[in-house]
Amino acid sequence: MTAGPAPATATGAPAVLGPDETDLLRELDAVLTGWARAAGAREILPPPVYPVSDLEKFDVYTNFPHLALVAAPLDLTDGPPRPAGGRFARADLQEPRLGLPHATCFGAYLYYEGAELAGDTLVTLVNRCFRNEDHYVPLRRLTSFQMREIVALGSFDHTQRLLADFTARITAFGAALGIGLEREAAADPFFENGGARALMSRLSPVKYEFQAGGLAIASVNTHRNFFGERCRIRLAGEPGHAFTSCVAFGLERWLAVLTDAHGSAPRALEAVREAAAALA
Amino acid sequence: MTAGPAPATATGAPAVLGPDETDLLRELDAVLTGWARAAGAREILPPPVYPVSDLEKFDVYTNFPHLALVAAPLDLTDGPPRPAGGRFARADLQEPRLGLPHATCFGAYLYYEGAELAGDTLVTLVNRCFRNEDHYVPLRRLTSFQMREIVALGSFDHTQRLLADFTARITAFGAALGIGLEREAAADPFFENGGARALMSRLSPVKYEFQAGGLAIASVNTHRNFFGERCRIRLAGEPGHAFTSCVAFGLERWLAVLTDAHGSAPRALEAVREAAAALA
Repeated sequence: MTAGPAPATATGAPAVLGPDETDLLRELDAVLTGWARAAGAREILPPPVYPVSDLEKFDVYTNFPHLALVAAPLDLTDGPPRPAGGRFARADLQEPRLGLPHATCFGAYLYYEGAELAGDTLVTLVNRCFRNEDHYVPLRRLTSFQMREIVALGSFDHTQRLLADFTARITAFGAALGIGLEREAAADPFFENGGARALMSRLSPVKYEFQAGGLAIASVNTHRNFFGERCRIRLAGEPGHAFTSCVAFGLERWLAVLTDAHGSAPRALEAVREAAAALA
Repeated sequence: MTAGPAPATATGAPAVLGPDETDLLRELDAVLTGWARAAGAREILPPPVYPVSDLEKFDVYTNFPHLALVAAPLDLTDGPPRPAGGRFARADLQEPRLGLPHATCFGAYLYYEGAELAGDTLVTLVNRCFRNEDHYVPLRRLTSFQMREIVALGSFDHTQRLLADFTARITAFGAALGIGLEREAAADPFFENGGARALMSRLSPVKYEFQAGGLAIASVNTHRNFFGERCRIRLAGEPGHAFTSCVAFGLERWLAVLTDAHGSAPRALEAVREAAAALA
C-alpha cells in the first residue's frame, strides 16, 4: 500500500487521516471526553453549519471576517454551472445563508438558547471547525479541523472552577506525555469591540493558551456573560445572564505534536494510554 | 432545563443534538464500527471539505448539481461585508474553491488515490455530509448529517462479499430492533451519464436501500470500477482499476426511526445494546 496522508492542498482542504492517525485521534478524544464525563459533563452534538443569522449573534462577521467561510448552493437557473480551474464563479452561486463555524462551543450556547438552567451545567462537544487562513500547514493549520470542547454554563464560580481544574489536568497530561507546554496569556478577539469587556480583558486575561513549541494545542477561555447574554441563557434563582467558560483542544494539532514527540502515531497512541492511566 | 432539539430551520441547518440523542448516535455508530472492524476494516478520517477539483472527478457537479453546497471566504477588499436578512450577497464572496461532500465514501477513494493496493482492502469512515434539499424535516432530511460507511476496494468478488455480508447483518439488526425494513432497488445517479454503466445498472441494480416506513436509513452500493478509475486505484497483480463497493448508514435517520419505534432515545439505546449483543 503506497497511500498515506498527502500534504494540505493549496485550498487548505486537509488530507484524509490514515488508520494510525485516526486511532490516535480517537484515543485522545476518548481521554478528553472521559475527563469531561468524570467532571459531570454530558455530551451534545452540534452541526458543522449554522444559519448566518446565528453566527451573527456572536459577532463572528465583525470580529473574525477574515476567518469566515460561508456555504452556498449552486444557481441552476441557466443550467448547472461548471467549475473552471477548480473554482466556481460568484455568479454561479445562490446567496449564502449558511455559515461554517470556526469554533465548537457556539453549539453549546445555541443548544441552551432561551433556556433557564436548573443549576451549574457542564457539556462536552466536538465539531468540525473551519478557518480561512492565509497559509496552511498539514495538521497544524487547516481549513477544517476538529475541536473538542468542555463548556461550563451557570455561575461565575462554576466557570472558573472548570478552567482551574483543566489547567491542572492539561499541565499534568503534557508532563506525563513528555510534551513541554507553555501557558501563555492570549487576546480573545471576541471582546475586541466591547469597551467594558476589552478593559476587563486587559485587567484580567480571558484566554490562556497551552503551546507546544509555539503551537497552541489547547486553551482555557472565560467569556463572562457574553454568550449568556447573546443567547438569553439564565441560571435559576440568579439575576442577569449565565456566565460561560470553555476548554478547547485542537485534535489535529495534538496529533502533530504527539507524533513528533514519540516518533510515530502508534507509539504516540501508547503514550496517550499510559499518560491517561497514570493520571486516572 | 427547558432546552431541547429545535426543529430544523428554514435554512435546513440541523438542531444541536441533546445528550440522550448524542448517546444513542454514539452507541449506534460504535456498533456499526465494531462490525466493520470485525470484518477486517480499519478506520480512516476524512475532512468535511474537499477541493472542488476533487469532487469534480466524481461527476458531482454534473450528476448532483442540485444537492451541491460550496464554501467561500468573504471578500474583504472594501471592508468586511455585513449579512442582511440572514444572508450575504454573492458580491460579498470570493470565488469558492471548496466543496462540501454529499457522501462519506469519497474520502476512501481520495485516500487511496494513485495507490496500488497490496490486497483486498476494507475501510470504515464517518463524515459530515451536506445536501441542499428543497425541504427539510428534523433528523430525516437535513442540510448536514452524519453518514457512516464501510468501503471495500480490490477485487469484484471482495466488493460483493461486503454487500452480501452487510445485507444479512442489516436485515438481522432491523429484526432484532423491531424495525420493519424493506429492501428496495434504487437508482444511483452516479451512473446516469455513463452509457455502458447505465445499461449495466438496468440489467443488475447497483444500489439497494433499506427503508423504514419509506425512509432510506441504509444502503448497499456497487460501483464496479467507477471510483477506482477516477482515482487511479489498482490492485496488485490485477489488470485495470480496482473495484469498489460501500455500505452506508444515515445516523440521524436511524435516530429518528429508533426513537419512534422505542418511544425515547434512552429506551432506543437499550434496544441497540441488546440487539447488538444478540447478534454478536
